[in-house]
Amino acid sequence: MDILLFCLFLAATFGAGATGALFPTGEWYKSLNKPSWTPPNWAFPVAWTSIYLLISFAGARVAVMEGNAYAMGFWAMQIAFNALWTPVFFGARNLKGSLPIMVCLWIAVLGATITHLQLDFWAGLAFVPYLAWVTVAAALNIAMVRLNPDQKPLPLQNL
Amino acid sequence: MDILLFCLFLAATFGAGATGALFPTGEWYKSLNKPSWTPPNWAFPVAWTSIYLLISFAGARVAVMEGNAYAMGFWAMQIAFNALWTPVFFGARNLKGSLPIMVCLWIAVLGATITHLQLDFWAGLAFVPYLAWVTVAAALNIAMVRLNPDQKPLPLQNL
Repeated sequence: MDILLFCLFLAATFGAGATGALFPTGEWYKSLNKPSWTPPNWAFPVAWTSIYLLISFAGARVAVMEGNAYAMGFWAMQIAFNALWTPVFFGARNLKGSLPIMVCLWIAVLGATITHLQLDFWAGLAFVPYLAWVTVAAALNIAMVRLNPDQKPLPLQNL
Repeated sequence: MDILLFCLFLAATFGAGATGALFPTGEWYKSLNKPSWTPPNWAFPVAWTSIYLLISFAGARVAVMEGNAYAMGFWAMQIAFNALWTPVFFGARNLKGSLPIMVCLWIAVLGATITHLQLDFWAGLAFVPYLAWVTVAAALNIAMVRLNPDQKPLPLQNL
């Protein structure tokens, strides 16, 4: 594997991952009603760090392969929606607005998993934990919308 | 050009572009001190829509070519930082925090322009307006940090 190429994909995930530091969870997140099966707070950075490393590995493997067009398209699509979700949920506090973003992210990750798997077993396998995690995240997002029907987005325009 | 592939890259830009609707500029942006050469408000959506269409075209052209590894890596990197900038500037209102993101975006767009140009003249050319626009945007970002030294990020944790 080309290590510079790995770093390039890792840089892309760093952009998405920076949202975790820039939009901290804080008291507002604590105050939300959450389902009983919500993962503990420490699980999120651990899961995301592992996922970002795995998909950077997958991207670097598949980038040098012929016929990687759709795999690379889905890779780019997933990182855009990944970078978008946290600011909308934790920044704009738009629970409902974060749902369609999560749906797009889930579709992109499913597409990336399938297209990477078609090219390379290890690259495809590296996307599987991500697909599992966004499935949990999507279920959590839906549950939080249902359990917090009175939550309004932050009125950014009036602040 | 594969139209489905074009739509896949366009979907990625849609994720980044959605920030424009989700984090509206509003009164706060109006109240900022801006340099005299700040482009008028209408220019931003026009520029971004054109750029997103152009780079989706470029991505779809280069995705089917051999030796596209670095081009695809830079394509993914630019869209992640593109999606991140607006929420940090207009959501968290973190003027200084948006600067390193703009630097990463500029590097990614420069890298994408060069690597696309090496593979395909038209794909490279399609990235040139983007490179020009992020250069202006970076200069604007620096100017706004300088002209608004007392601006503090939105205290999201205390809201």
